[in-house]
Amino acid sequence: MSTSGKPAVVLVSGGLDSSTVLAIAREAGFELFALTIDYGQRHAQELQAAARVAAAFGASRHLVLPLDLRAIGGSALTSATPVPKHAAVEEIGGGIPVTYVPARNTLFLSLALGWAETLGAFDIFLGVNAVDYSGYPDCRPQFVDAFQHLANLATKAGVEGDGVWRIHTPLIDLTKSEIIRRGQELGVDYGLTISCYDPSDAGLPCGQCDACLLRLKGFHDAGLEDPLTYPAQG
Amino acid sequence: MSTSGKPAVVLVSGGLDSSTVLAIAREAGFELFALTIDYGQRHAQELQAAARVAAAFGASRHLVLPLDLRAIGGSALTSATPVPKHAAVEEIGGGIPVTYVPARNTLFLSLALGWAETLGAFDIFLGVNAVDYSGYPDCRPQFVDAFQHLANLATKAGVEGDGVWRIHTPLIDLTKSEIIRRGQELGVDYGLTISCYDPSDAGLPCGQCDACLLRLKGFHDAGLEDPLTYPAQG
Repeated sequence: MSTSGKPAVVLVSGGLDSSTVLAIAREAGFELFALTIDYGQRHAQELQAAARVAAAFGASRHLVLPLDLRAIGGSALTSATPVPKHAAVEEIGGGIPVTYVPARNTLFLSLALGWAETLGAFDIFLGVNAVDYSGYPDCRPQFVDAFQHLANLATKAGVEGDGVWRIHTPLIDLTKSEIIRRGQELGVDYGLTISCYDPSDAGLPCGQCDACLLRLKGFHDAGLEDPLTYPAQG
Repeated sequence: MSTSGKPAVVLVSGGLDSSTVLAIAREAGFELFALTIDYGQRHAQELQAAARVAAAFGASRHLVLPLDLRAIGGSALTSATPVPKHAAVEEIGGGIPVTYVPARNTLFLSLALGWAETLGAFDIFLGVNAVDYSGYPDCRPQFVDAFQHLANLATKAGVEGDGVWRIHTPLIDLTKSEIIRRGQELGVDYGLTISCYDPSDAGLPCGQCDACLLRLKGFHDAGLEDPLTYPAQG
């Protein structure tokens, strides 16, 4: 696969969604610059998965940027608040989850914007999804549109390039099973990824947090098997 | 001065502008939460000045958040590119200066947004100025408006509070001399601040960078004396 296309910055977490986005950006002909924000997550396994996935798709660079959001707090993902566990996907509550991180996608896109401007890349890819993560305000199309508008006002490239920025969110309207099918077609090895909010020290997913339950349901609905090993299955 | 008012997050750099903003926010009755981003600046003196100023105005907290923008580069303030020096303020060129940091104010406001949401504060103060820093795209009113719009879409507080966020930029239309006069009225000790892009190891301003020249002209136009000592004066 050629990497001689236009450069793009792709936010990569090591999870299923952003790995699929990486495959979609490569398929569209972009040269990939993968960006992972190390925001004091509970598990370093995410960072290792991000590096595996970036390498698998031939990213020209993988930048891991430390940003310790624990100083800010306000989320189960960056504080001592326990991650909720459920027996089935139907038990996941409505509203905004405790795993919401204040201003997370605004911050991640801002960091991508700064790096992209330095690289001379004006395309940013983000794996947000408004279907399965409808509780997160910063996964909605109106948020993404507002950020693209901001980028064109905020930067030298936006002002001089007359609205050159594009924020791509190719998964925003897909269900989890549609994401998995698309990734499968594009050759994503989901065995390299990790979605769990609370994996074991050995890097095994818990199978009971919202992220695990949504992932398992996605594979089930897609008629495919998740290559990861879960405690209940293992 | 009471600090029992509504909480506000104030971005504080240790410079003249943000110190004046701190005074204005206190005067308006807000409880002050000062936020300084340690973005790998060339000089730690800025951070010390920020701490002095936050303490002088009785901030309830002063959070210094590390964010190493050197990994991103793209600016004379975060890379090895030399800071331009001039003999007089008239020599400062037009266009976007090399001291522009890609997406800086977008990033700073995003961090302020995250912290503010955790604190339950919905007012953010930023000392941008569209008069003397007209070359920076992210110092313009349309940028600030776009960020406020984004904040109301991006966050739990914005969605549940129906547009609760306010980004305050009280200096945006003031000249440097007007800022200094306002600060003087409110009791700002400008001897605590530092504006220089390239101070000596002892913390003395260079007197020749854009920031020094604009500051000196501001004091001159205000008919006041800068309490700092400059090489040419010393």
